[in-house]
Amino acid sequence: MNIKKVNLAQKLATFSEHWSPKIVGELNNQHVKIAKVKGDFIMHQHDHEDELFYIISGTLFIEMNDQTLELHPGELVVIPKGTPHRPYAPEEVHIMLFEPATTINTGNQADSDLTVTDLEKI
Amino acid sequence: MNIKKVNLAQKLATFSEHWSPKIVGELNNQHVKIAKVKGDFIMHQHDHEDELFYIISGTLFIEMNDQTLELHPGELVVIPKGTPHRPYAPEEVHIMLFEPATTINTGNQADSDLTVTDLEKI
Repeated sequence: MNIKKVNLAQKLATFSEHWSPKIVGELNNQHVKIAKVKGDFIMHQHDHEDELFYIISGTLFIEMNDQTLELHPGELVVIPKGTPHRPYAPEEVHIMLFEPATTINTGNQADSDLTVTDLEKI
Repeated sequence: MNIKKVNLAQKLATFSEHWSPKIVGELNNQHVKIAKVKGDFIMHQHDHEDELFYIISGTLFIEMNDQTLELHPGELVVIPKGTPHRPYAPEEVHIMLFEPATTINTGNQADSDLTVTDLEKI
């Protein structure tokens, strides 16, 4: 058994593209992902999966039907399944995501140009 | 629906005891917990659950049979189910845990004085 720690800053330094989550950990059929995001994402929802956003650096906005959250480093939010949400980031933000291994980034908008499948493990 | 963000520093400021995880988020039958730890924990294993440790502040050591990991802020590790491990912290460390809602902190040593059940949600 070779159990290795994961340094998020080191992993973040290995890629530059936006809105393309990378898998950095797996446990209990859940994935831990990191991503760099900047600009606008699409409104979407995950019908069967709750999704956690944790902010590593930068300021992430998540627009929902009745409010827009502003998230800073050291803050997290759980978006319950079935909740339409649209992340956006005027400046680059680094995030960590916890969600089931089955989750697709664009949820019910899986035919979007922003959809990423076959996520890279780094 | 009232979706609120969680500020980890604010939550950490609400308690001081060691080795007593508090629940700060729930998703997909998993719990997100935070804890302050200092001193020695016991060697234990979780027979059915993988467990994620993420370091918010301080230096956490995790002793296993064949290695001891030293974890710093911004680092995480997934301890696979069935792996004996013993966390210890010479100085206070703040951690975030991600694990199934069924996980008990002392795993197969659930009769320990360190066992905490009925975790507080903060």
